[in-house]
Amino acid sequence: MSRLDVFIRRMQAQRACIDAVAEKISGVAGPVLELGLGNGRTYDHLRIRFPEREIFVFDREVAAHPDCIPPQRLCRLGDFRATVPAYLAEGQPSAAFIHADIGSSNKEASLRLAEDLAPDLLSILAPGGYLACDQPIVLDGLEQLALPADLDEGRYHFYRCPH
Amino acid sequence: MSRLDVFIRRMQAQRACIDAVAEKISGVAGPVLELGLGNGRTYDHLRIRFPEREIFVFDREVAAHPDCIPPQRLCRLGDFRATVPAYLAEGQPSAAFIHADIGSSNKEASLRLAEDLAPDLLSILAPGGYLACDQPIVLDGLEQLALPADLDEGRYHFYRCPH
Repeated sequence: MSRLDVFIRRMQAQRACIDAVAEKISGVAGPVLELGLGNGRTYDHLRIRFPEREIFVFDREVAAHPDCIPPQRLCRLGDFRATVPAYLAEGQPSAAFIHADIGSSNKEASLRLAEDLAPDLLSILAPGGYLACDQPIVLDGLEQLALPADLDEGRYHFYRCPH
Repeated sequence: MSRLDVFIRRMQAQRACIDAVAEKISGVAGPVLELGLGNGRTYDHLRIRFPEREIFVFDREVAAHPDCIPPQRLCRLGDFRATVPAYLAEGQPSAAFIHADIGSSNKEASLRLAEDLAPDLLSILAPGGYLACDQPIVLDGLEQLALPADLDEGRYHFYRCPH
């Protein structure tokens, strides 16, 4: 399997998780959080799937396509390790859905980042809320879900905060 | 359709063109040319599909994943408008396949670049050779092909140089 194959599968799995949450989440109040804006493709998908919700966006900087720039008041710029706890401290509402595409080419650093962020992500999630992440999250209190449709496990990671 | 949807479709179409060429090209001698290395995902796919061929890589710089760095002797760095004619002037063999992923977020500039490069790309292609490009190429002497499988037209652009 080439890196192109792996990438396409990961994008498909990411999209499938987002689409599955959009179908399931109507009973849970709260905004969507996007960790890792990048070029804004996934943000564009989120705002189409969750048109009625605010989408808070976390990244080091806004470097997205001009058509995919979030409103400034919903951007939280800086290191995730600082901006995610700061969101909690702001007293913002719990999130119905967190999508976190936070990995880099450094696999070990990506896993460590996910591990560091995990407790705060769980604190931010509303009961019944969903978390989809490119990195595995191992944490008591977070229920692991199977990937939607016929996707192979391990392409993306999908969780729910129990009620 | 979101930008994520469009992107996944484009990646699938790109891969389908490459895989189709790999099946059809055995009777045509010559190297593969990759215009636009980027992070090297597609280069990785090309070297798996064309293990017996040299792959010349053209880009402004080598900024690929460490696992996807081409041999230096096969890299042609700089503006495509200079490096593609220079490849011809080197007296290198005609290409069995050119894959050109040359677009940027500026649609007009991308179309103009494809138009500027088209005559040289046709000059480099071996008779019976294939060209797959993210931009449309309109040029006498180049036969337009339908996309492989059940892909919608317009996601990628696929051509052959007649014998």
